[in-house]
Amino acid sequence: VQEVPAGSQEVRWLEPLELDAWRSFQVLQARLNAELARDLSTCSDLSYPDYVVLVALTDRPGAQMRVQELAGRLGWEKSRASHQVTRMVSRGLVYKCPCRADRRGALVAVTEQGRRAIRDAAPSHVSAVRRLFIDLLSRDQLVQLRDISTALLGHIGAPEGCCDGP
Amino acid sequence: VQEVPAGSQEVRWLEPLELDAWRSFQVLQARLNAELARDLSTCSDLSYPDYVVLVALTDRPGAQMRVQELAGRLGWEKSRASHQVTRMVSRGLVYKCPCRADRRGALVAVTEQGRRAIRDAAPSHVSAVRRLFIDLLSRDQLVQLRDISTALLGHIGAPEGCCDGP
Repeated sequence: VQEVPAGSQEVRWLEPLELDAWRSFQVLQARLNAELARDLSTCSDLSYPDYVVLVALTDRPGAQMRVQELAGRLGWEKSRASHQVTRMVSRGLVYKCPCRADRRGALVAVTEQGRRAIRDAAPSHVSAVRRLFIDLLSRDQLVQLRDISTALLGHIGAPEGCCDGP
Repeated sequence: VQEVPAGSQEVRWLEPLELDAWRSFQVLQARLNAELARDLSTCSDLSYPDYVVLVALTDRPGAQMRVQELAGRLGWEKSRASHQVTRMVSRGLVYKCPCRADRRGALVAVTEQGRRAIRDAAPSHVSAVRRLFIDLLSRDQLVQLRDISTALLGHIGAPEGCCDGP
């Protein structure tokens, strides 16, 4: 795709370093997500999407938020978040309740079973994150990665609620 | 999830810098993928999965590879790659042909229509990658990101074929 199609001479195609950085970043996220998903499915009853939804909710006081906000926080389309929530409701991991502040929006909240599921899954997942990511990086690299991610999110726009602490 | 459950005192939970680096990296990839997918669906007839499949195939001399290898290269489960290929076959973007070297495996190859589709989509997609990622980073940051990604992939294991040049 690096060939120049007729009529698009103005396109600034990626240069070698740019292409390397972009592609290695993309392959990394794909490989990492695949490994973490495999690890979770081996060590717990949660899928990776289940896990990230439960983390997002339990990070929040009251362990609840609106579906729209959940979607933004995870970078998902709202329809994907709705389907995921529906599946998790049917498995007893979360439940929906009316939002008092906004009658149109329902809140998603974590059930006791959901809390137990993530508490059980977390130790092995954190070990996998350490093994595949954190423990392979120096402190300088962690700082670089945090600064790069934060700078990019500052331009792209972080989703609502993403900057709340754990 | 940072609370320590009974019986797992040996878990090394993430420290603040580690947690910041990991979470900002995760939110970044989610937000970036959501923006790039939205941009592609506005500016072309391809979805983001269509696009990355076509890039992976057209990178290869002959523009073809086995489904298994495609899956590895994209970090997808084989079933996800198979479903995606089936959808793309039905839309005329790729076709399947027998693999001469291995009778069990089918090759996926790009059609003329698939080549045209990616040629048409590429300029706007590359502009979006520049706008949301490349042009926001300094040369030093591109080098840091490339080195971090490459180092991590060296440990996780890059998928078959991922280190071929474009």
